[in-house]
Amino acid sequence: MNILIINGPNLNLLGKREPEIYGTLTFDDVFSDLTARFSEHNFHYVQSNHEGTIIDTLHEHGFTIDGIVLNAGAYTHTSIAIADAIRSITSPVIEVHISNVFRREEYRHHSTISGACMGTIVGFGFDSYRLAIEALIERNKNK
Amino acid sequence: MNILIINGPNLNLLGKREPEIYGTLTFDDVFSDLTARFSEHNFHYVQSNHEGTIIDTLHEHGFTIDGIVLNAGAYTHTSIAIADAIRSITSPVIEVHISNVFRREEYRHHSTISGACMGTIVGFGFDSYRLAIEALIERNKNK
Amino acid sequence: MNILIINGPNLNLLGKREPEIYGTLTFDDVFSDLTARFSEHNFHYVQSNHEGTIIDTLHEHGFTIDGIVLNAGAYTHTSIAIADAIRSITSPVIEVHISNVFRREEYRHHSTISGACMGTIVGFGFDSYRLAIEALIERNKNK
Amino acid sequence: MNILIINGPNLNLLGKREPEIYGTLTFDDVFSDLTARFSEHNFHYVQSNHEGTIIDTLHEHGFTIDGIVLNAGAYTHTSIAIADAIRSITSPVIEVHISNVFRREEYRHHSTISGACMGTIVGFGFDSYRLAIEALIERNKNK
Amino acid sequence: MNILIINGPNLNLLGKREPEIYGTLTFDDVFSDLTARFSEHNFHYVQSNHEGTIIDTLHEHGFTIDGIVLNAGAYTHTSIAIADAIRSITSPVIEVHISNVFRREEYRHHSTISGACMGTIVGFGFDSYRLAIEALIERNKNK
Amino acid sequence: MNILIINGPNLNLLGKREPEIYGTLTFDDVFSDLTARFSEHNFHYVQSNHEGTIIDTLHEHGFTIDGIVLNAGAYTHTSIAIADAIRSITSPVIEVHISNVFRREEYRHHSTISGACMGTIVGFGFDSYRLAIEALIERNKNK
Amino acid sequence: MNILIINGPNLNLLGKREPEIYGTLTFDDVFSDLTARFSEHNFHYVQSNHEGTIIDTLHEHGFTIDGIVLNAGAYTHTSIAIADAIRSITSPVIEVHISNVFRREEYRHHSTISGACMGTIVGFGFDSYRLAIEALIERNKNK
Amino acid sequence: MNILIINGPNLNLLGKREPEIYGTLTFDDVFSDLTARFSEHNFHYVQSNHEGTIIDTLHEHGFTIDGIVLNAGAYTHTSIAIADAIRSITSPVIEVHISNVFRREEYRHHSTISGACMGTIVGFGFDSYRLAIEALIERNKNK
Amino acid sequence: MNILIINGPNLNLLGKREPEIYGTLTFDDVFSDLTARFSEHNFHYVQSNHEGTIIDTLHEHGFTIDGIVLNAGAYTHTSIAIADAIRSITSPVIEVHISNVFRREEYRHHSTISGACMGTIVGFGFDSYRLAIEALIERNKNK
Amino acid sequence: MNILIINGPNLNLLGKREPEIYGTLTFDDVFSDLTARFSEHNFHYVQSNHEGTIIDTLHEHGFTIDGIVLNAGAYTHTSIAIADAIRSITSPVIEVHISNVFRREEYRHHSTISGACMGTIVGFGFDSYRLAIEALIERNKNK
Amino acid sequence: MNILIINGPNLNLLGKREPEIYGTLTFDDVFSDLTARFSEHNFHYVQSNHEGTIIDTLHEHGFTIDGIVLNAGAYTHTSIAIADAIRSITSPVIEVHISNVFRREEYRHHSTISGACMGTIVGFGFDSYRLAIEALIERNKNK
Amino acid sequence: MNILIINGPNLNLLGKREPEIYGTLTFDDVFSDLTARFSEHNFHYVQSNHEGTIIDTLHEHGFTIDGIVLNAGAYTHTSIAIADAIRSITSPVIEVHISNVFRREEYRHHSTISGACMGTIVGFGFDSYRLAIEALIERNKNK
Repeated sequence: MNILIINGPNLNLLGKREPEIYGTLTFDDVFSDLTARFSEHNFHYVQSNHEGTIIDTLHEHGFTIDGIVLNAGAYTHTSIAIADAIRSITSPVIEVHISNVFRREEYRHHSTISGACMGTIVGFGFDSYRLAIEALIERNKNK
Repeated sequence: MNILIINGPNLNLLGKREPEIYGTLTFDDVFSDLTARFSEHNFHYVQSNHEGTIIDTLHEHGFTIDGIVLNAGAYTHTSIAIADAIRSITSPVIEVHISNVFRREEYRHHSTISGACMGTIVGFGFDSYRLAIEALIERNKNK
Repeated sequence: MNILIINGPNLNLLGKREPEIYGTLTFDDVFSDLTARFSEHNFHYVQSNHEGTIIDTLHEHGFTIDGIVLNAGAYTHTSIAIADAIRSITSPVIEVHISNVFRREEYRHHSTISGACMGTIVGFGFDSYRLAIEALIERNKNK
Repeated sequence: MNILIINGPNLNLLGKREPEIYGTLTFDDVFSDLTARFSEHNFHYVQSNHEGTIIDTLHEHGFTIDGIVLNAGAYTHTSIAIADAIRSITSPVIEVHISNVFRREEYRHHSTISGACMGTIVGFGFDSYRLAIEALIERNKNK
Repeated sequence: MNILIINGPNLNLLGKREPEIYGTLTFDDVFSDLTARFSEHNFHYVQSNHEGTIIDTLHEHGFTIDGIVLNAGAYTHTSIAIADAIRSITSPVIEVHISNVFRREEYRHHSTISGACMGTIVGFGFDSYRLAIEALIERNKNK
Repeated sequence: MNILIINGPNLNLLGKREPEIYGTLTFDDVFSDLTARFSEHNFHYVQSNHEGTIIDTLHEHGFTIDGIVLNAGAYTHTSIAIADAIRSITSPVIEVHISNVFRREEYRHHSTISGACMGTIVGFGFDSYRLAIEALIERNKNK
Repeated sequence: MNILIINGPNLNLLGKREPEIYGTLTFDDVFSDLTARFSEHNFHYVQSNHEGTIIDTLHEHGFTIDGIVLNAGAYTHTSIAIADAIRSITSPVIEVHISNVFRREEYRHHSTISGACMGTIVGFGFDSYRLAIEALIERNKNK
Repeated sequence: MNILIINGPNLNLLGKREPEIYGTLTFDDVFSDLTARFSEHNFHYVQSNHEGTIIDTLHEHGFTIDGIVLNAGAYTHTSIAIADAIRSITSPVIEVHISNVFRREEYRHHSTISGACMGTIVGFGFDSYRLAIEALIERNKNK
Repeated sequence: MNILIINGPNLNLLGKREPEIYGTLTFDDVFSDLTARFSEHNFHYVQSNHEGTIIDTLHEHGFTIDGIVLNAGAYTHTSIAIADAIRSITSPVIEVHISNVFRREEYRHHSTISGACMGTIVGFGFDSYRLAIEALIERNKNK
Repeated sequence: MNILIINGPNLNLLGKREPEIYGTLTFDDVFSDLTARFSEHNFHYVQSNHEGTIIDTLHEHGFTIDGIVLNAGAYTHTSIAIADAIRSITSPVIEVHISNVFRREEYRHHSTISGACMGTIVGFGFDSYRLAIEALIERNKNK
Repeated sequence: MNILIINGPNLNLLGKREPEIYGTLTFDDVFSDLTARFSEHNFHYVQSNHEGTIIDTLHEHGFTIDGIVLNAGAYTHTSIAIADAIRSITSPVIEVHISNVFRREEYRHHSTISGACMGTIVGFGFDSYRLAIEALIERNKNK
Repeated sequence: MNILIINGPNLNLLGKREPEIYGTLTFDDVFSDLTARFSEHNFHYVQSNHEGTIIDTLHEHGFTIDGIVLNAGAYTHTSIAIADAIRSITSPVIEVHISNVFRREEYRHHSTISGACMGTIVGFGFDSYRLAIEALIERNKNK
């Protein structure tokens, strides 16, 4: 399988930003672990702080790739445009969050994109990404 | 590991109820699959339409069992008492939903229990339960 | 026809509770009148103060009985689980209320179950039950 | 008994308008059925698309007629003036709706007139009118 | 001065409707008192239950008459069209209410037309009309 | 094509009412321009301050005429009954507004009828009517 | 009659404050006019910027004086304590406002005290005070 | 006096659950203290996680016992059915809370049952129960 | 112990104001009873209709006195400044209300100061004050 | 005339994305039709998924071009920055939407930019663009 | 320049009240620093816990003094009367807050007075006062 | 000190855009003034209409620069992503606005970023930038 992981705004600072919420691991470490663990699959990784770039990336890969894991960061709570992009493409998209957003500020409890995604995985730390990949693999088997 | 699966109201009708949303499989079929797939672990299963029984069950097992997978059904959206029960116990609880609740009626978009759980997995059909078990196993490894 | 009447919380106190709203008749008196009036039909009666028991009762009879008359009492305004149970079964369910709930507190103006029921009859005193039975009989004729 | 049936806006198009919601019967057919079924009573029928005419009609008959069956159509959700008219007269008024308004758009879930009426009957198709007449007859007996 | 008094829906029933709120005097009695009291001025009186007729009346007289006293009844709380009509004409319009609407139901606390009128007089029984006429006379003097 | 133009409440005062918003042209001038410009089509014009008359007019012509241009004035923001009438008929209806309602009071930003119409044209002065006719002609070509 | 006029916060600046809303007359000028016009009655005048002093004044005179005219200024929109004071005393209180508060900011459209007063007079400039006195005199006659 | 103490959901875990909020004492310890302190009165104690059982208990004792102390736990914030039960019985019910609920989550600031109870005591730790008993004794004296 | 009782606006009229809600006893009578009942403690009493004076009083005594019983009257629902004063001092403050505020108008159901106080006692008539003193004594013992 | 057409996020997928809403035509086809139809005018076309690029484009051309047709896609509902950009430039901007947004999700019923534009055209499919150009031409004539 | 500093409720406790938010410095210390730092200007200082006194002070100095620095404390969030006072006077008023109110409770995020002031400075500790004085001096230069 | 000034969307048009709100000075003029006035410090200036570029800029400099002055323009009211970026970096950020946003549209009264910044300065025209720099310098001294 070919799998795309997209990380949204501020997630490039993982390991550096608010470590009491997100831990001290960088996403590079996480990505290495994931590619090692799922060595039979191909991974592509994009991080951007630009809403438009996230949409461009969804468009570019969203008709050919086998699955997308998307952590849209703060755009999760405000972007109808990303939700529309997810609905516009044919590849399945899974929404993930590292922290349990439902324990944080009220405005982080609502996601504009959950309804557009295949499913949502929230609160398992970096393991959220692994579980999303597991879900894509299972779905692929059952096609 | 000893793992408890709790299903809330109306989930006893799975396979019978609104199959266009939940499919035609019964949860017995699903449970057989899960116990076969994770044969090295022990599973305990409770289904109840009673909010109080769900709380009683969480209390009974919630200080000794290694993990709990909870699909609270419609109580997800109204029960503060179950959320309090989850916060009162020490076993980790994972919230799961079969359907993508964020595509359904507005009142199903809010969960009173998400903030009390370790994490939430929504929209993968019965695979949501499998992913929750995977998450519990991973968490157990990292303790 | 086989018809099930379900009364929800506090309706066991009819004749005893707030007589200025509900009158001094007990539901036993009412039930006698109804069975006498519709002597060619069979009636089954369940009252419970437990949301879970109301759901259990809907499940138990809801695939075989010809019609259900449901006064869910205060659960009318809070229970999504009962509404889901009604949608999950195949027998037609009619919602009834004795008093005109729209003249009472604001929070009694909204029903979570109306949309799940075949129809709603509000405000005719105990005659609400009789009218619901009439509606079930008419519907049965037209099947 | 002398009974007045009032139909509000767009109900003159019954049989013609959105048949997937209201069916293909015209209200003339329904009215014939009702007068035949309750041949010992006298019926008067008014339909108007004018809020003011509905109020005029309630005033004209509302102090002398034995009962009124009112389907106020869309004015149900916006007219305080009709609710005031109902409260101003002495004949009992029963609110009816053909479709289950609680399954339709959110703004159809609220009625400004329910609290002013004796009772409300919703969702039984044209049988809602018959049930309302039954309720008026019963009430007349018990006076 | 030429003064127009307009009464909206259900005010034709004054003396007959909910006497605990509006008293037992008819508006004819009130109108006789007013014309006697202000015998040096000419009065014109229109009552209608039709929102459209109230607007037509405002248009017909609103560019020539010296002042208008308007009790829009229940349309006070819902009609933007009457408010627009008041803004469209050049004669001053004074809003009056017989009862203290701020002691009644919440939805009677808001008026769509107050901002379009010269002023508002609420709660003095039929004396509200007299005070409005006094206000028009004073305003006329100061022109 | 046969085209019906309906103007709602207070639009009879165009040229007279609040000229800083609506200009000094009367609708008669506008209508002359339109019929001259589209001389190959037939036009019918109705203005009414009565919600009920607008509904009656929609019913009368709405099953035979080729297109309707509707400026419902203030009823745009409050009338569910007109929206229902539009949904009940088969002729296409286009909603127009002369001024940019989105620059005016908050309560003018919401239209109950937009969703019932084929399309909406707002803010082009009297040219809004011309554009609506253009849209009807184009639609007619493509049938 | 003995009549008390109370002016709330910032009304001491009348003639000085925002003259485009309140004019250039001081309240002393207005008070002279009123005492001259109603020379057969006794007037007492209190102005305070202190909510507590307004309450103290209402208590001091509110069981013996024949009537109170109250312009509570900005406390109109926030003070439950003044509303309670009005309800606690036996003298009739009339609420007045100089400007048409319903044309101003949204938060000036709501009054906490209207429901506690005998009646409300809004928007007639300083004539609002005169009309309130007229209303008190009329009420006194009818006792 | 015969006094019933009812504890709602999760209060069986007192001493075990979130000790930073509720302390480490079990309710058994508290109950011993209370019965010792008020040794001249008889106490009955019921704890349940079931909304229905709390209602059943209120019905069973609510017409004969001298007073009821009720800590409804999380049902405080969601149960209209318990509030109805309290209104249906004749024994006085006092609502108590151990912690200061007004310092906790927003949704714990509202109680559906306060208006149905004789009074409410919040925030004194276990002393809330003692104060409620004191209040019942005082009330008994004054009957 | 030295205990301060503070009564807010309009409570000086107790015995005189709305006796159907507050009874005919004056607070002087109540205060005599309390000082007699708790003769081993010293009491200080302040009543004011001024929000600022209540704050001044809390500041003056709030660092030295053993406990404060505060009935803030209508300021309970609007004053953030009093809540801040309570949080700023070190003496424990108990909020009391004579009537069951939760049975009265909606706006009396919310208190800005409950979260700042040690605890809240509502609805026991004048016995609310006695219970608050009992609570302070108990707390003093346990220090 | 020189006319700029700007399409916002996801509109590059027209013909590919959700064809049941947007049809199977690409915007290239549409653009060819428009340039052919209005061959005497010059057109410039920009599509971007980036909110910032839409603003940059408005700035670049908005002081020199004769008119702008803007379909801001999902940014219509969330972008204050684009609305500010429209207000900052001098070229007239017309808002268009292909589908009838008022028939779709609630959050698509509100536009942040309508009040900043000259006018709005909604729901005519690709003909919305043609009508906007017609409006710009008419406006140009009348300058 | 002559500059007035006004501190509202509870700010007399600075150095004593909630030091984790406001620090341990008293305002006397701060005032000494400010007068030393800006020794070429004259300062006047008023602190009051009374909303009315703040208004009186604004009136007294607000037509003659060169600038006012106002920290209205909790009245910031509730007082329309102070906002009206600021609008009524001619001296420029600058709103300051010591703490970052936007990090604290939701109800501290809204200020009724910001729109009435020349500008607002929030969150710089006592340096907020110094910056406000700098702003007044700059403004004075540019007059 | 090294200080970064970031201006958000549409602020490149300063001097050109809505001069009645923002004046006719360009930011280049302002920047020259500031660098001249604070010639002992180094300034870096970035303007962007792209939310993502603002985030990128905050990340690039936010761990090394001594202070950041941010006018986020319209993103102030909608961007959670920028607020997260501010919280993620270690340099202090001060929010500034040129105009008094609290006097403008309701939606400009709320800032998503205020709580994330060190402090906020609003309404002093271009002097807001100078004051922010003063605040950074003061803070630097006190480190």
